[in-house]
Amino acid sequence: MPGPTSYFDPRRASELDARTRELVERRARVLGSAYRLFYEYPIELVRGSGTRVWDAEGNEYLDAYNNVPCVGHSHPRVVEAMAKQATLLTTHTRYLSEPIIRYAEELLDTLPTEIGNIMFTCTGSEANDLALRIAKYATGGAGVIVSANAYHGVTTEVAAISPSLGGLDSLAPWTRVVRAPGTEVDLADAVVAAIAELDELGIRPAALIVDTIFASDGIYPEVAGLAKAVAAVRATGGLFIADEVQPGFGRLGTGMWGFTRYGIVPDLVTVGKPMGNGQPVAAVMAQPALIDEFNRHSRYFNTFGGSSVSIAAAQATLDVLRDEQLTENARDVGAYLLGELRGIGKFIDVRGQGLFIGAELESEQRALTVVNGLRKRGVLLSASGAGNTVLKIRPPLPFGIADADRLLTELAAVL
Amino acid sequence: MPGPTSYFDPRRASELDARTRELVERRARVLGSAYRLFYEYPIELVRGSGTRVWDAEGNEYLDAYNNVPCVGHSHPRVVEAMAKQATLLTTHTRYLSEPIIRYAEELLDTLPTEIGNIMFTCTGSEANDLALRIAKYATGGAGVIVSANAYHGVTTEVAAISPSLGGLDSLAPWTRVVRAPGTEVDLADAVVAAIAELDELGIRPAALIVDTIFASDGIYPEVAGLAKAVAAVRATGGLFIADEVQPGFGRLGTGMWGFTRYGIVPDLVTVGKPMGNGQPVAAVMAQPALIDEFNRHSRYFNTFGGSSVSIAAAQATLDVLRDEQLTENARDVGAYLLGELRGIGKFIDVRGQGLFIGAELESEQRALTVVNGLRKRGVLLSASGAGNTVLKIRPPLPFGIADADRLLTELAAVL
Repeated sequence: MPGPTSYFDPRRASELDARTRELVERRARVLGSAYRLFYEYPIELVRGSGTRVWDAEGNEYLDAYNNVPCVGHSHPRVVEAMAKQATLLTTHTRYLSEPIIRYAEELLDTLPTEIGNIMFTCTGSEANDLALRIAKYATGGAGVIVSANAYHGVTTEVAAISPSLGGLDSLAPWTRVVRAPGTEVDLADAVVAAIAELDELGIRPAALIVDTIFASDGIYPEVAGLAKAVAAVRATGGLFIADEVQPGFGRLGTGMWGFTRYGIVPDLVTVGKPMGNGQPVAAVMAQPALIDEFNRHSRYFNTFGGSSVSIAAAQATLDVLRDEQLTENARDVGAYLLGELRGIGKFIDVRGQGLFIGAELESEQRALTVVNGLRKRGVLLSASGAGNTVLKIRPPLPFGIADADRLLTELAAVL
Repeated sequence: MPGPTSYFDPRRASELDARTRELVERRARVLGSAYRLFYEYPIELVRGSGTRVWDAEGNEYLDAYNNVPCVGHSHPRVVEAMAKQATLLTTHTRYLSEPIIRYAEELLDTLPTEIGNIMFTCTGSEANDLALRIAKYATGGAGVIVSANAYHGVTTEVAAISPSLGGLDSLAPWTRVVRAPGTEVDLADAVVAAIAELDELGIRPAALIVDTIFASDGIYPEVAGLAKAVAAVRATGGLFIADEVQPGFGRLGTGMWGFTRYGIVPDLVTVGKPMGNGQPVAAVMAQPALIDEFNRHSRYFNTFGGSSVSIAAAQATLDVLRDEQLTENARDVGAYLLGELRGIGKFIDVRGQGLFIGAELESEQRALTVVNGLRKRGVLLSASGAGNTVLKIRPPLPFGIADADRLLTELAAVL
């Protein structure tokens, strides 16, 4: 048997109870080999509420991992808004509708005034893919610069700029990967070098794109040189895309967006995962001149992007975020958790911002032992970073001090 | 002022009533220039039921156009299934869950046994994009052959094989567009010529992909040479992708899928639009060996693809399709409508299958006059084909004989 794993290894099927084994086997037959199940022993989840989820046998877990249900699992206001809208109508953006306009206005109000337009998609992958299309048309460039272990999605175009998916061999020739963050290399120096490499290949930069919390790189809340890197790309005519799919919507506790902490105004901002608390809704926000240029080259219509039910879910999510002051909660509970985690003294590094925290251990083996140990003790989280050595703590935003204490207690026991 | 248009022309804003004008202006400000509104005068839809929709002023319309709400607008069983699941849990595929397995088994049961795996996405664009990624890894080829005015979606990769979006200039160098259907050219001859062109460029074919009802080409239900074209591509090591995003799920009245009418077993099948009756859910279905090869090259995870609520919607949609015998209804009402439309004697051609019918007029001007005239008389449809000359009749599947008669009466009045 292999060591501890992030995902269920089918060779372990004989260790499962009869029901789980049957489900796992039926699942493998129809979903095929590309699907994974979290943990050494999979969990069959059937119910969720707030920061808790329950499996089919009624066992309760503290969810310290899922960022999609950002206002809490099955939040009644989001569920009700979706159900009410679905009862009335589910349709697309080629009919006039007030709710999508109101939502767009409210969301754009949280961004710098330069970012004046929003285009809706269904996933963060589609949003990043569209952002790159827009950037390429607007700049005439093709080069894309990304961080060391970047993940920006799974369409052909964004998989080709995501070294975390298939390694460097799977990238497009126009993708340049900079050796930062997480190394001694300064991001700005690395980006300047990448621009020079592209220039040697005769490729003009279209964009620098970064996840502003650098989640797949191992969670880096303060990366030296980002603003300088953006300036360097802009000096060549390239754009800056802030990928807010993971850090966005208040998780960092310092306002709605990760990029504001760097004092940068992006050209394009992409959002997704938490936007509809689980409903498939995502978006690109951009400076209007960029959209105008895109529109001169191609039609764009996304059948489900910004559909009535998706907008209802997104509006309710935004309303709850404000009404329940979840950004403030992320700030306060995040600061408490960060301090307590550092106090444990067993991590190589503890870093993070708000409720997006990475706690680094000395090896993948150790990190995965902790992840699977916590799962047995009823706490869900995962490991991240290029070497899978960083515990990723990224709970629903209503995560309270009591939740943090429960996580800390179980973590201490497992460590 | 321009002639009749498919979409609202902002220069017409002064002709709108105060509320509509205000909404249109606010919308343009935030959604930007790439968004369109159907019809010369936009419709603000607020409610739907079965084959009917209502605008904000309470005016009722017969929907003869929307294929997404395939079992009818706001079908109570679909709404209830979604609401019930959303109340329980909305999560992703990395936790074990029985409903997705059951749905996958039931859906795959409707396909040839060779098609053994399904991978869930959120949109048809993502499904076609993933199908191409799979085909390229499996074949080692890069060439993609598409029909004259093909539309396969809006990600970078599938926009680059969709001449209907931005014309031939917007296509990738590996895309070959065949001059069929809708011309005298036989599809098989055209595909053989395209393979030779790719060969001259040193590009091996990865796939021939076709929408099996050729919707954006102008709706062609029986294209001579398709089976022969598939054989020609396969002889070079390429694959056949049946894009069932539009024809699939019983709309053609001859079973669930468009490709079966050609006696072909595809390598990959993509589905989307009607799958969840409006919920963003789509999928790629494939021969398992293709998925295995893909999995050797890249990780794949789609956060919202096959999420709990999306599967609940898809299952309910499939159940209603069967229980209400909507495929049989599509067959019978479609045949009636086809006959009556031909009887009008004012069309250059009337063609179709089930509830996917194209009625061709002599000019775009004439087709758009009819489309906008019908909208004024409370019947919604649109125009299609490269020249926008084909009335596209593609209603929700509960469309009954009385609905057909209403459409025919209004159509006769407008013509």
